[in-house]
Formats: sequence, C-alpha cells, structure tokens
Amino acid sequence: MASQIKDLSKLCIHTQTTKPWDIDACVRNYSMKGIKGITIWRNVLENKNLNGVKALLDDFGMNVVSLARGGFFPSVDAGKRHKAIDDNLLAIEQAAVIGAPMIVLVCGADGGQSLEKSREQIAEGIAKILPAAQKAGIKLAIEPLHPMYAGDRSAINTIRQANEMAEMLHSEFVGVAVDVYHTWWDPDLQAGIQRCGEQKKLFAFHVCDWNVPTTDFLNDRGLMGEGCINIPEIRTWVEDAGFRGFIEVEIFSDKYWAMDQKAYLEKIKQAYLTKT
Amino acid sequence: MASQIKDLSKLCIHTQTTKPWDIDACVRNYSMKGIKGITIWRNVLENKNLNGVKALLDDFGMNVVSLARGGFFPSVDAGKRHKAIDDNLLAIEQAAVIGAPMIVLVCGADGGQSLEKSREQIAEGIAKILPAAQKAGIKLAIEPLHPMYAGDRSAINTIRQANEMAEMLHSEFVGVAVDVYHTWWDPDLQAGIQRCGEQKKLFAFHVCDWNVPTTDFLNDRGLMGEGCINIPEIRTWVEDAGFRGFIEVEIFSDKYWAMDQKAYLEKIKQAYLTKT
Repeated sequence: MASQIKDLSKLCIHTQTTKPWDIDACVRNYSMKGIKGITIWRNVLENKNLNGVKALLDDFGMNVVSLARGGFFPSVDAGKRHKAIDDNLLAIEQAAVIGAPMIVLVCGADGGQSLEKSREQIAEGIAKILPAAQKAGIKLAIEPLHPMYAGDRSAINTIRQANEMAEMLHSEFVGVAVDVYHTWWDPDLQAGIQRCGEQKKLFAFHVCDWNVPTTDFLNDRGLMGEGCINIPEIRTWVEDAGFRGFIEVEIFSDKYWAMDQKAYLEKIKQAYLTKT
Repeated sequence: MASQIKDLSKLCIHTQTTKPWDIDACVRNYSMKGIKGITIWRNVLENKNLNGVKALLDDFGMNVVSLARGGFFPSVDAGKRHKAIDDNLLAIEQAAVIGAPMIVLVCGADGGQSLEKSREQIAEGIAKILPAAQKAGIKLAIEPLHPMYAGDRSAINTIRQANEMAEMLHSEFVGVAVDVYHTWWDPDLQAGIQRCGEQKKLFAFHVCDWNVPTTDFLNDRGLMGEGCINIPEIRTWVEDAGFRGFIEVEIFSDKYWAMDQKAYLEKIKQAYLTKT
C-alpha cells in the first residue's frame, strides 16, 4: 500500500507541462502555488540571458531538478552525430550556468539503421560528453522511452536496457530516469527500479498518466489519476529503491495546454497530492 | 543474410488488409494474383452463409490460414468476461465451418485493473475455450501486441509474456503468433522466437512495417520495406526456429484503403517478393 503524499516539498514541474508559459511565468506561478522544483526545457531558455534566469530562479528559491533534454545521439549521418555531441556539450554549459545538477537524455534512434547500431552510437555519444559533464558536476540520466518511439526517438525502450547502458558506462554521473508513461507496461519495471536503486543510479522519477484510449503519439498524456497507470504503486517501488528526489510532473497535452494554465496548475497540485 | 523469397506459395493476406473488399472480392482477387493463403477477419463473415463461404474458398483453392480475431478476455465486469467466452466459442464454431485451422487471439486488457489481473483473466479465458478448440481441432495463437496497446487491447506485450502464457497452458493447441509490427523493438525477440519454435509453439508470422513517423495508433501501418523494421532478419529467425507456414500480410492503413485495391494488391505482392 502506497503512503499518501503529505505536502508539496518534492513536487517538480517540467516547464513543458505548462508550455504556454515562458520561464518567468513558470517560476512565478509555480512558486505562488508553493511548488519548489522545476525542470527546465531548453526551448524556454532560447534568447534568454542565462545568468538572468539563474538570478530569477534564486530569487524565488526554486530548485532546478533537471535540464531537459540532451541526447538524440544516433544518426546514419556522421555529421549529425557530431552536431549532437556539440549540442549536448552546449546543454552541459547551460545546465552549469542555471544551476541544473542533471540533464535528462532522450537518447535517440534512427530508423535507417538497427536498434543495436543506434544503441552503440548512444553509448559512444554519452562517453564523449561524460568528461565535460563530470567536470561540471552534472549528472546524465538515461530515460528509457516507450517502444512506440523506437523508430525515431529512443533505441532504449526498457528499464533493463537503460540499466545496462548506465552500468556499462560505469560512472557515478550516469544513471536512469524512470518515467511512468514510458515504462508502466514493462514486466521488468519493479526489478529494474530495484536494480538501479541498488547501484545508486536511480536519478529521476517522472509522472503523468496513460489515457485510455490514447489518441496522439506525443501530446495526449493524462494527468495523474486519469489513466490506467498505478502511479502510487510505482512511486512505492521507486521510494523502496532509495529514491528521495523530486517527483517530476511531465505532461504533454494539447487539451491541457488549451486551458487556463493557473487553473491547470491547481489541478496538477491536487492530482499530485491525491493520485500520485 | 536472409534468403530471397522465391514465389508466392507462402503468401497469405488478411482480409482486413484489403478492407474495402468483401469476402468474395478478397478470394477472387487474391486468387487471380496467384495468392493461395487467406486469413479471414470475422467482420467479412457477418450476414454470410458460412457453408457458402467455405464452398467459395474451396472453389478457388484458397488455404484458410487463420480466423481473426478471438480473445478480448479481460474485463472488470464479470458479465463482459462471460460474453467474451461465448464469443470465442462462437469463433471456434465459425472457424470449424470455414475450415480455418487456427484462431488468432488479441488477448485484451482492461485499463481499470492491473496488467497482472488482465493476464490472469486471459489465462482463465483461454483455459475455458480450450476444450472446444481442441475438440474442433483448432489451434489458438496468442499474439503479443505492442506496448502502446497495453491500456486497452492486450496485456500481453512481449514475446516472453506470450511464450510464458502459451507454455503455462501446456496444450499442443496453444501457441504464439509473431507480428513484426508488435514485436520488432523487443530485445528478447530472437531468443523468444527460438524458444517457441523449440516448443513447437510458433504458430503464425505476420508482416507489415513500422512507419517513421507513425501518425495513428491503429491505421498507419506501412507496407513491407517502407518503414524501419528489418523484416528479412526477423523472417530468418522465424524460419531458423522451424516455422514453415504462411507469411501473413496484415496492414491497417487509411492511406492504402483509399487507393484502388487491385493496384494495392500488386504492391503487396512486389513488397512480399522483394522486401520481406
């Protein structure tokens, strides 16, 4: 039986969850609701002075949980693979300036080659950026993505594959991000969470829900409690594995982006307290 | 290296692949193209005299590979579970009349309960219809469905889960249907195909392709060669596991359903000969 979440102290919102808001609106509104954690998507940093963003975050006492997203390493085109490395190195610099202790990696896939080949390129890519990440003190979290993204977004689709990749790179700076949306169906999920917890590689925990039916490949995620995922059960596994970090709400939803974002933030808060 | 497919002797088409055609049009047109195998979807049998369908199939020398689909066992509602059993028993009767030696099971899932509970109900459901299937000499093929259908269509999402379910029911009438669309991403696929081949439980092999990007959860399947699945490699695994049955083309595609079906059938034939 999952314990009830008692307060907002571990609640983190991804800026993409409230996509209509810019970084200022995110910080002000999250803070006003008593939310102390934020994962910052790189799009909200475009054309921004990063030191100014850092000052804003500090002013409001916001904890930056993660920068989203690095990764997208594989390509049949070597030039694109080099560009991906450069972009990840830039992400590490950005993370350092805004005070993000971690970057979430959507590892990537290229349908023009095998999943095995894409995974090799992911391992190579992470190995190449790891020295810079380590130097900056920034962790890299490998996020397994749902198999429906295996053709174009991630060749890492199970918790076991994420664990294997993280372990192979044997660095305290490389771990795993568990998102219930991507992993809820995985028969190895509980064992895999336990395994990365034991290795101190359980770096992040993302929540939302799987709508039944789901009508869009990207932007039809549900608010916690609306779909078929037993989120409290998975949270219990994560906590039993020793995770004490923020619980990150990451919802892409055309439906919710169309509503008043302050009212939506209140719904998120209630769903976090009662359905997570 | 996969061997080239030499002729049409093992080509089977699902009637749903050419959805605009009724059973008469399917049989006549497949036959005219030299196609000898057909998997019949139950919708094309509605309001038909099944003995008449059987006579039509015999007249054209068509081999019925399978009847699609049984299954959909789980529900939080006991009444619905009973109805599902009745419907599966009816499917067995239909299969017997039209001479189908096998029924493909889309096992089902109910998002209102856990995947484990749904799998229990699937096992119970198959056990309940098994005596009738055995008596009629009709095999039941458990088809693992892609994890994107775990919320509503199938709680069996990996080749391992399908093998475990089939083995647990220990009957020569229960086996596994491997569809490349549902399983291509599965890191255990090759080992799982080998395992069910060794147990003489590899009952069916379905092909189509995974479009990159895929835009619809149901009806955006690609023709072989159009997407990112290495179909010849998977076919080699299936053949190495001892499978000698028909290769079934099962494509749901709004795009292809909108085109002239005779021209489409010619495309299927060419894709079968060169990209499968």
